Formats: sequence, structure tokens, C-alpha cells
Amino acid sequence: MVYKREKIASPVIRRLPRYYRFLQELERRDVVNVSSGELAELMRTTASQVRQDLNCFGEFGQHGIGYRVETLRAEIGKILGIGEYYPAVIVGAGNIGTTMANQILCTTECFNLVAIFDNSESKIGSVVTGLTVRNSAELEDFCTKTKVTTGILCVPREAAEEITARLYNVGIRSFWNFSHYDIMAKYPDTLVENVHLNDSLMALCFRIKQNELASMEEAQDNSK
Amino acid sequence: MVYKREKIASPVIRRLPRYYRFLQELERRDVVNVSSGELAELMRTTASQVRQDLNCFGEFGQHGIGYRVETLRAEIGKILGIGEYYPAVIVGAGNIGTTMANQILCTTECFNLVAIFDNSESKIGSVVTGLTVRNSAELEDFCTKTKVTTGILCVPREAAEEITARLYNVGIRSFWNFSHYDIMAKYPDTLVENVHLNDSLMALCFRIKQNELASMEEAQDNSK
Repeated sequence: MVYKREKIASPVIRRLPRYYRFLQELERRDVVNVSSGELAELMRTTASQVRQDLNCFGEFGQHGIGYRVETLRAEIGKILGIGEYYPAVIVGAGNIGTTMANQILCTTECFNLVAIFDNSESKIGSVVTGLTVRNSAELEDFCTKTKVTTGILCVPREAAEEITARLYNVGIRSFWNFSHYDIMAKYPDTLVENVHLNDSLMALCFRIKQNELASMEEAQDNSK
Repeated sequence: MVYKREKIASPVIRRLPRYYRFLQELERRDVVNVSSGELAELMRTTASQVRQDLNCFGEFGQHGIGYRVETLRAEIGKILGIGEYYPAVIVGAGNIGTTMANQILCTTECFNLVAIFDNSESKIGSVVTGLTVRNSAELEDFCTKTKVTTGILCVPREAAEEITARLYNVGIRSFWNFSHYDIMAKYPDTLVENVHLNDSLMALCFRIKQNELASMEEAQDNSK
């Protein structure tokens, strides 16, 4: 597949996993063809946006027929790197670490979770999704030997800086980051996906509050 | 605080929790004043962007001095609705549900987690963050009596549709959604924050793959 990487804007990348998800669902329902209009409805966007997005990656659609669900799903999967199973390690075997281990095991074909590390005696040796939690002291040795590509940071902010440095020093350049440590500020040559659960909660809280304020204003206006 | 709600663009809302986080950190480090330039560096944006963002909410800064960290943190907190403690319930006491219960308990002042529900006999009656997991059959009764504002969906896609309908029917209009069910497609009058962990993983996978392809092309170019 030949396509111009430099052309792909970040919002398109954000949308690709959603396309993939919707196409998977259509495939499960044995839908054979899908039009850009139908995809647009699922994605809650316009047909022309869908065509523009998919054009970034080459021509999949046929005029009057639309897209073949199976082909398009497979192509987008290939573009996303699904099936690559990049070797990843989780650092931090607490609640978030355990949840993400399950997440990777059950629902993605992007990464292969090869180890989980923790520095707490109470966690080392316990079993999470079939993996025995290892001592963080072995982090560098293991990652070098196993050619790990990706670090998943499920440690508190205070520990994240040290763990990131250690992973970076053994050549790891991609991170799934649940800590609040800003990896890219110090390591601009890394690929980072941040998941800030608190930010998401705060954004929801903000919108509830705004809604309340709007209702109150409306009530005041009506009582005038 | 008077400000024009309709003016606030979604990217600004996204940035507010990050401002809040950085200001909290500055406050912990006893920093008294901060300039828009310093804030910009933390946010990895420009000083004029910072000033523009904060202007949406009124004037906090003083020329030549900058912003008072404590005041600005408190004001942004008020805007975000921090301290409101909206009553929320979690549905689904699995890994994700348990993790989010901890998350809410330990790290936010936005929501007050008042109950956790599950429909599995093995989970009902167990204790999560001090709350006894309730039978989902009691969902409507409980939410009506307790005036719950927010539902946190930690159930699989298949269950999410039914649970959303039941919560919606007792007046719940805001959701923190970990399922892949598209709540807003059916209920456009709701406030929804989606957390799609898989999409985030797939986006990371895509970027690793793109990076690999770029390195391969570079190697080919060099060998010519």
C-alpha cells in the first residue's frame, strides 16, 4: 500500500480506529457493501468527509456500489498496523495496569503484552492475565533481550519520570501513558498516546455545570 | 463569574483540565505567580494562545506580573465545576469499573460516587472502594431516590444500550462512557465523555507502523 504519510492529518488518524470499529460491526452483521453516506451516518459526519478521509489511503470505493466492507476493514486494519503485535510491557501492576493488561489481551491485535513489572513486594510474583508480575529491577534486562517496542505507564506521576528514562535508555520510543508525566516535553523523539482519565472527568463536570448554568438563566429569563 | 458560554470552543474546554493540573502542580511547589509564557511552556503552546484561552473566562492576569497561581487555579476549578461532587453511579463492577471507582475516589473532586451496580451474582455484595456492589435490578429505584446526575458505563457494548436507556429513562443526562456504544447517536440531548481505550491503542499502533515504514524508506534511499 503506497500513500503519502505526510498528508495524513492528526484528526484523520483519530478517526481511523472508529472507521475500523464500525466496519468490524458491519462485518459481524454480514453487511457486504457500505456507501460513504451510510458510513458518514455511523461516524456522525458527512459523506464527503468520509470520501476525503479514505482517499488519503488510496481508492477503495466503487461508484454506485460503495465500499466492500471486508476489503475496507482489512485495508484500514493494515494501515493501522493491526496484526503487528508489537511487544509491549506494562509498568505498574495496580488497578490501571491490571485493567489495561486485560484490555490488550481481550480486545486488540495491535500489541503483544510480554511482561508486567512492579516494584512492590506484594505484587511481584502475582499473576495478571497469565503473566507473572516481574520485579522492576529487571526492566532494562528484559526489555533489551525481548526487543520491546512499547512501554505502558501505569505508575503514579512521581514514578513516571524515572521509569520513562529507564525505558528510553534501552531504546523504547513509544508509550501508552496513563500517568500525568509529560513524556514528549523531555523526549520529543517519542510516540506517545496519553490517556488522561481525570481530564476527561473534569471536561464532563464542566459541561454538566455549564448546562446547569444555562438552565438557571433560562428559568430566570422565563420568570421575568 | 460571568462569561459567554457560547464563545467557548471545544479545544479550549479540552485544555482547561490541563491548565488546572499544571496550576495544581505549581501551587504544590509554592510558586506564587506565573506568566503566560511559563504556562505556555508547560502546555506546549504559545503565550498568546494561553492569554486567548484564559480571556474566554474573564481577566485574571496582570500586566508585568502574570497570573496569581492560587487565584487562577481556584477560578479554573470553579469554571470546571470542581467541588460540585455530582452524584454518579458506575454500572459494571469488572476491571474497568473497579479502576474508575478508585480513580474517582482518589483523584477528583468533580463527582461523588454513590453506588456501583452489576448483574453478576459473583460481584453483587462484594465491596469496591468502600461501596457494596448493588444488583442492577435496583438501578432505577436507586437513581431516582438519590438524584443521580451521571452514569459511568463500564459494561460491554452489548449491555450498554439497555443500561443507557434505563438510566436515561430516570432522567440521567450525563455519561462517562467506556463502552463502544454511541450514546449521542440515540440521545442527542445527553452530555457524553467517551473513553475509547482501544482507539487510543490503535492510534499508537498506527504511529509506530508509520515510523517503521519511514525508517525503511530512509534506509532504502540511503542504499541507492
